[in-house]
Amino acid sequence: MPSPTISWHNNGVRLIDQTKLPGRLVYLHCRDVKSLWHAIKRLSVRGAPAIGLAGALGVRLAAEQYRRDDVVGFVRHVLKAARYLATSRPTAVNLFHCIDKMTAVFEEGPLKSVRQLKALVRKRSVELYEHDRKTCRQLGAHGAVLIKNHASILTICNAGALATADYGTALGVMYTAKEKGKRFKVYACETRPLLQGARLTAWELKRARIDTTLVCDSMAAALMAQGKIDLVITGADRIAANGDTANKIGTYSLAVLAKHHKIPFFVAAPLSTFDIMTKTGKAIPIEERASGEVTGFGGRVTAPKGIEVYNPAFDVTPGRLIAGFITEAGVIRRPYKRSIGLKLKRET
Amino acid sequence: MPSPTISWHNNGVRLIDQTKLPGRLVYLHCRDVKSLWHAIKRLSVRGAPAIGLAGALGVRLAAEQYRRDDVVGFVRHVLKAARYLATSRPTAVNLFHCIDKMTAVFEEGPLKSVRQLKALVRKRSVELYEHDRKTCRQLGAHGAVLIKNHASILTICNAGALATADYGTALGVMYTAKEKGKRFKVYACETRPLLQGARLTAWELKRARIDTTLVCDSMAAALMAQGKIDLVITGADRIAANGDTANKIGTYSLAVLAKHHKIPFFVAAPLSTFDIMTKTGKAIPIEERASGEVTGFGGRVTAPKGIEVYNPAFDVTPGRLIAGFITEAGVIRRPYKRSIGLKLKRET
Repeated sequence: MPSPTISWHNNGVRLIDQTKLPGRLVYLHCRDVKSLWHAIKRLSVRGAPAIGLAGALGVRLAAEQYRRDDVVGFVRHVLKAARYLATSRPTAVNLFHCIDKMTAVFEEGPLKSVRQLKALVRKRSVELYEHDRKTCRQLGAHGAVLIKNHASILTICNAGALATADYGTALGVMYTAKEKGKRFKVYACETRPLLQGARLTAWELKRARIDTTLVCDSMAAALMAQGKIDLVITGADRIAANGDTANKIGTYSLAVLAKHHKIPFFVAAPLSTFDIMTKTGKAIPIEERASGEVTGFGGRVTAPKGIEVYNPAFDVTPGRLIAGFITEAGVIRRPYKRSIGLKLKRET
Repeated sequence: MPSPTISWHNNGVRLIDQTKLPGRLVYLHCRDVKSLWHAIKRLSVRGAPAIGLAGALGVRLAAEQYRRDDVVGFVRHVLKAARYLATSRPTAVNLFHCIDKMTAVFEEGPLKSVRQLKALVRKRSVELYEHDRKTCRQLGAHGAVLIKNHASILTICNAGALATADYGTALGVMYTAKEKGKRFKVYACETRPLLQGARLTAWELKRARIDTTLVCDSMAAALMAQGKIDLVITGADRIAANGDTANKIGTYSLAVLAKHHKIPFFVAAPLSTFDIMTKTGKAIPIEERASGEVTGFGGRVTAPKGIEVYNPAFDVTPGRLIAGFITEAGVIRRPYKRSIGLKLKRET
């Protein structure tokens, strides 16, 4: 990868503007919380782990910019920024998880000086960042075992280096398999409406010299019927206590198709994507986005003016369609109600 | 509708350039067989019945333009044009069917004068045209019975007025249901890569004041899981003797999803789309189109340069996933091997 998708840089948050890929590799430098909020909202940074880190670095940004020496004022200022950042996107739980981890430094021990608190905030953001890097590597190693030599893998959206601090979750599994010398092929669903598969995953995998073929989302079923898919691996934005998984719209479709064709369907996600406070997928809020994402692209209008559009950014795949969750602590298998709770209790 | 999708006009073939919709309603006037061939190839005219008529009018165009008085030369000239037109697209059987019907006039009775043969060709093209109009109306009436009041219908691609000489097959069913005073809702899949659902179906249905919502192809499964779809109706490009059906890529995906959600899946197509010489779907040739259809749109490139692409224009839905075929002669039900053969024997 050229440089991290998101990082703390020059007193601000530096991130790849993913809306410009694959045409141009451009960096944004967010110097205030508001511009970072907008960067998350318009998907300049996206992918559950990466927006979690964006939230964490946003909290740090708010902290670093506080200029007075009033501890209570500092805490209020940072908590306000945290609440604001949490409104940028509703579905991926990593955002709330990371922001909570950041503000939790205020609850640890007696109230300290602003200088000390700033240092704690800084330290926590680095820890979260390093944790995500380590998580990617561990997750990749657990997942790579599932990829047989000469396998053909289908994925959707981008759960790669662009979605994390390191080399990704679903794509991290593939990068690790390649490092281990395995030969395999990837079919990348283009991922309408915003084409993260075509723009980001195809770009990443091609740079990594992994044999990749781009298809429209609607072609996955035909590929499966032709026996061209051995395995599906996707990322996740939020996983409920029973294994129901919110991920990019189209994921549920792939899971049903995989079941029909008897193809194992895996979800690769760090434990921070699990949300045991959410009992089932029904309780996961699904972001609906602007109709313009569907009715046009790059300034070109492709649908009649005024047509009604339904544009959910995510769908929910029931746990029963998922063969396993590839995490940094191993592959979690059914029954999920039990196994997810146990794994989280043990690891966090 | 503004005026027919395709018609004989001013000594040539006049057709709506569907690549320009919904932005502009532009007509092409093809004055020679070659320009008509290219119009079919690049999808200025598309939809199985409409390309059948394009083939028929192309044969007429060749006939009308023959200037000498040599009967054998005339027949050779027209047959050559017919063979050429048949190479424009491989999957929809209506093209071959209509071209064959046109050239069949040469086999009827003794060889006549060029003038007489031209008149026969002209008459046959008008008959095919009128047959398609009548077929749409009859098919629509048989299909409308399947639409319950307040139903919600999913469709893909465009099997409407733009795909036929009249008001379409799958959409014809909806137009008829509306004429009969039924209230219902349509979800139109945008139909990647060329967006015939967004550009053509949404445009047609909106003009007809039918309650229509545009979705990405990948959203169909989520709609079904939410109980928002009661019925799927699509068109067809070729139906094999056992009911296996080639149609726009993504149709098979919808059929599998419909089965999983216990939603009836119907195909609306004239009997001319059935090809009993093709025993099963395996024998239907599937057109693969250029990668550029997937890697960009309207001049904007949306995938990394040089990425491999798989771009089949059609997929094959097994007959076992199809609840029935809505035709001008009624709804054909399982077992298809028997019922399709019987219906065709009786009607043609």
